[in-house]
Amino acid sequence: MKRSWSRIGWVAAGAAALSVRLVAAQGDPLPSWNEGPAKQSILKFVADTTTAGAPGFVPPAERIATFDNDGTLWSEQPLYFQLAFALDQVKAMAPKHPEWKETEPFKSLLAGEVKGALAQGQKAMLEIVGATHAGMTTEEFRRAVVEWAGRAKHPRSGRLYTEMVFQPMLELLTHLRARGFKTFIVSGGGVEFMRAWVEPVYGIPPEQVVGSSGVVKFEMRPEGPVLLKEPKVEFIDDGPGKPVGINRFIGRRPIFAFGNSDGDHQMLQWTAAGEGRRLAALVHHTDAEREWAYDRQSSIGKLDKALDEALAKGWTVVDMKKDWRRIYPFEK
Amino acid sequence: MKRSWSRIGWVAAGAAALSVRLVAAQGDPLPSWNEGPAKQSILKFVADTTTAGAPGFVPPAERIATFDNDGTLWSEQPLYFQLAFALDQVKAMAPKHPEWKETEPFKSLLAGEVKGALAQGQKAMLEIVGATHAGMTTEEFRRAVVEWAGRAKHPRSGRLYTEMVFQPMLELLTHLRARGFKTFIVSGGGVEFMRAWVEPVYGIPPEQVVGSSGVVKFEMRPEGPVLLKEPKVEFIDDGPGKPVGINRFIGRRPIFAFGNSDGDHQMLQWTAAGEGRRLAALVHHTDAEREWAYDRQSSIGKLDKALDEALAKGWTVVDMKKDWRRIYPFEK
Repeated sequence: MKRSWSRIGWVAAGAAALSVRLVAAQGDPLPSWNEGPAKQSILKFVADTTTAGAPGFVPPAERIATFDNDGTLWSEQPLYFQLAFALDQVKAMAPKHPEWKETEPFKSLLAGEVKGALAQGQKAMLEIVGATHAGMTTEEFRRAVVEWAGRAKHPRSGRLYTEMVFQPMLELLTHLRARGFKTFIVSGGGVEFMRAWVEPVYGIPPEQVVGSSGVVKFEMRPEGPVLLKEPKVEFIDDGPGKPVGINRFIGRRPIFAFGNSDGDHQMLQWTAAGEGRRLAALVHHTDAEREWAYDRQSSIGKLDKALDEALAKGWTVVDMKKDWRRIYPFEK
Repeated sequence: MKRSWSRIGWVAAGAAALSVRLVAAQGDPLPSWNEGPAKQSILKFVADTTTAGAPGFVPPAERIATFDNDGTLWSEQPLYFQLAFALDQVKAMAPKHPEWKETEPFKSLLAGEVKGALAQGQKAMLEIVGATHAGMTTEEFRRAVVEWAGRAKHPRSGRLYTEMVFQPMLELLTHLRARGFKTFIVSGGGVEFMRAWVEPVYGIPPEQVVGSSGVVKFEMRPEGPVLLKEPKVEFIDDGPGKPVGINRFIGRRPIFAFGNSDGDHQMLQWTAAGEGRRLAALVHHTDAEREWAYDRQSSIGKLDKALDEALAKGWTVVDMKKDWRRIYPFEK
């Protein structure tokens, strides 16, 4: 054991030294962030927790950073992008489901009445998700998501959904990893939906994605084993489910967490309540021109109680309009 | 994105070059393995999948290796070590539970009649697990496991349970990691039980442990948020549950899997059925003198159908008596 540990130590030390040098050579690690308290608090936290000998130093193994996805790493308006996928899938799958022409909520959806379909409430939503996210193998589902992500365009920007990620957050993910953090997504979105595309987009591997999930069943078929997605919710990784999901998948309390809505409130509380240096942060959507402006009254990404606690406790609040020089990578 | 990706590339290349040099300097990476087909198949697989330009080359991100724990990384006789923990906990907790003197299965356990208590069947087992693994916070449970692991001794060896890990497997874990593999535990054991001690013992961090789990609930208390362990099974990571657990936690099919019982059968099938080079392997407990000898008839770690398929399909089968020069780290 001793020999193996010392070898791991050497490798880690080599990698760390190299990354620190490269960061230094690069200059500002967050060029899309304007100077201000948000950028300052993040850079100071990272420096304090990763500088050997500093009073806030945290060993590399404990440098866990968790990020919400919808509204934190990419946009979520005018509706969650995964819902856009589900609605597109209903259209794509309709030829194989003639009965949908006569069955709600599919009938409304196929007639182009999205609002009417969604207004039918949670039962309708579960039927849409069940029809588009289950009854197939995990591999079939993954291929459907990859295919969609490579072609579907956002209604306002005309860009691929995966282009509507936040450039300042990409820089932050990179900076954290360069300083030895392990970056995780902890999202209310479906874990298998995200895993199909997050690795090339965020540099986050599938095993570092925590999300909501449906029941999956192992089945031995003549051609070999498959994993079958069943139309049954298994876990909702939202609100109080986020610290539960973190405990289940990561098993270690983050020292850094970033969200944008009340669905992230308990994750931020759980992160902030740990011992030693902690950073809890929120993206506040304040830019109606370049992105969207919404908070306390929004049905998507409602930010109310978490904002109150953030202001009361001095958590980091990113004012998108003021703090971000650039929103999307495709902007000049 | 391009700048960040190239930086990651540099760091990874630096670490990889360093680790390859260190492995070369060390000589045989598996000194506790006798020469033979098992050792040969493992070394060849690792070389083929990690040598740039080789036909079997696998990119580092896809080098996922999963290991069962009980009977694969450490011993599991005369009873699962986690069960030994639970029985010890019943004794430790008894002063606070006077009612146990009159209630089965606790009454038998406290009278030293372990066999009688366990013979009461699954309901009794669930009561023992519920009483010792729930009704407390995740942090309280972790501390109980750490305390136990630091003091409890195995009845035969007189050693700490965490000393009864297999030296050849420690070497294999180290070798895989040095060649860019990410090593995971995928065990029927309780995930929170394992996470309390696996990092110093195996070099596997908590976020790379997949296991069985109970329901956990977020609760805001006056002193801050806690995660409460409830006496309700959430997931059994055994048999067909193992590929399901792999999908849920890792989201990527392993290329290398190691087990020792029929509880690992579906994990090995799932691993072997993927495209490209795969290695599915079993530890066969054949050494009654230095460890234990058991397989088709054993109630613990039964190995029957998986052994048939391994022999039929040419999976790697480790004959403990022949293939391992040394079993435990404490042997000379």
